[in-house]
Amino acid sequence: MRVPTLTATEIAGMIDHAILKPELTRSEVDAQLDVAARYRVFSVCVRPGDVAHAVSRLDGTGVAVGTVIGFPHGTTSTAAKVAESRAAIADGAAELDMVINVGWLRSGLLDDAESDVRAVVGAAGGRIVKVILETALLSDEEIVAGCGVAERAGAAFVKTSTGFAGGGATPEHVALMRRSVGPSVRVKASGGVRDLDTVLAFHAAGVTRFGTSGTATILSDAADRDAGGSTRARVDDTSY
Amino acid sequence: MRVPTLTATEIAGMIDHAILKPELTRSEVDAQLDVAARYRVFSVCVRPGDVAHAVSRLDGTGVAVGTVIGFPHGTTSTAAKVAESRAAIADGAAELDMVINVGWLRSGLLDDAESDVRAVVGAAGGRIVKVILETALLSDEEIVAGCGVAERAGAAFVKTSTGFAGGGATPEHVALMRRSVGPSVRVKASGGVRDLDTVLAFHAAGVTRFGTSGTATILSDAADRDAGGSTRARVDDTSY
Repeated sequence: MRVPTLTATEIAGMIDHAILKPELTRSEVDAQLDVAARYRVFSVCVRPGDVAHAVSRLDGTGVAVGTVIGFPHGTTSTAAKVAESRAAIADGAAELDMVINVGWLRSGLLDDAESDVRAVVGAAGGRIVKVILETALLSDEEIVAGCGVAERAGAAFVKTSTGFAGGGATPEHVALMRRSVGPSVRVKASGGVRDLDTVLAFHAAGVTRFGTSGTATILSDAADRDAGGSTRARVDDTSY
Repeated sequence: MRVPTLTATEIAGMIDHAILKPELTRSEVDAQLDVAARYRVFSVCVRPGDVAHAVSRLDGTGVAVGTVIGFPHGTTSTAAKVAESRAAIADGAAELDMVINVGWLRSGLLDDAESDVRAVVGAAGGRIVKVILETALLSDEEIVAGCGVAERAGAAFVKTSTGFAGGGATPEHVALMRRSVGPSVRVKASGGVRDLDTVLAFHAAGVTRFGTSGTATILSDAADRDAGGSTRARVDDTSY
């Protein structure tokens, strides 16, 4: 398959720059917000307690601010996820990346898992909700079931990983997710997305949003390839 | 120092049996609830979404049900932690183990961190609140500051770890925490508490509650030592 070449600008427009480690200080967060602004990524994905600050600091840059809900375990109550969503929106969050209740999903309690997602979609008031499946913890059947839950509940995206469960996006999982949702639901890859080749390969598999903290490396490499014209050749070399 | 011997019953009365992995199914949770009932531990510490179910299944066993708030990153908004606390209490939770906002603590935003804890203590309505510091992510100075935050905010316990940050309780950290709070604040050790010798050594250092998923091993070994009278000798062998 011939893979379309993506420019650095096009890639930046698909990146949610992840600033999620619990131990990050305010000044460390600020440094990453500045990276996001410098590279003009689509958005930052920050900890809920950082949303208001990020909105303020990124004002005028064109970079949106998203956050995470029920992160990273997804095991909190639906009531808590709704309250967390409302607080995040009040602080200015434009998108919500929620973690599915993995235990309910693996127990076959799909109605409960769906109600949980639907409640967050409702609280989001039309904003984009992405449903993190945490694919490293799931069988293929559970990934397919999770995709169904997310789509029925009105999610805009299914997303692979939190980045905190010891495993991230794989080519097999993103392809399975792409096949398991309809065309109106998009796929976000996250967890282990650290280099340009991975971005290009996942994009070829149908991924249109990337969660990464490796933004500077990815976009610097993309700009270098734009300048040197080598991107297409190297993309065509990828085996998946 | 001569360490007091603890019987298996005394140890059981200090154990919060941890059932917190996000991927656990309902039947896996049930198996662990039954372990807790069989060994008559003080409590189980379950995921928020499991509280109502655990309360029902453990009814009549004498085992209390606690849960976690803002777990495991501690980075959600205060509003979300309060909502999560209220939902947990409505479901029957007797104790709340909340995670401090580690980022705020490490940024020196101690007033914000304290307000966050105080809001959960307020929502708990007199129930025990334990503040998880996640010591593996902190310097000694940050541990001391976190202890101060927890005590000023009215927490009943300071607790070492979530068990999900790649490091758990250490003898040095529990001793530091014991020294850094007044006598009315208790210390819970968690994360890596997997054997009887660790329990006895931490107890000698002032720990009076243990979070562990190794309950069966610890209490079986304690019962064996009770029967054989070998506990005291082995405790006296410990070097800390």
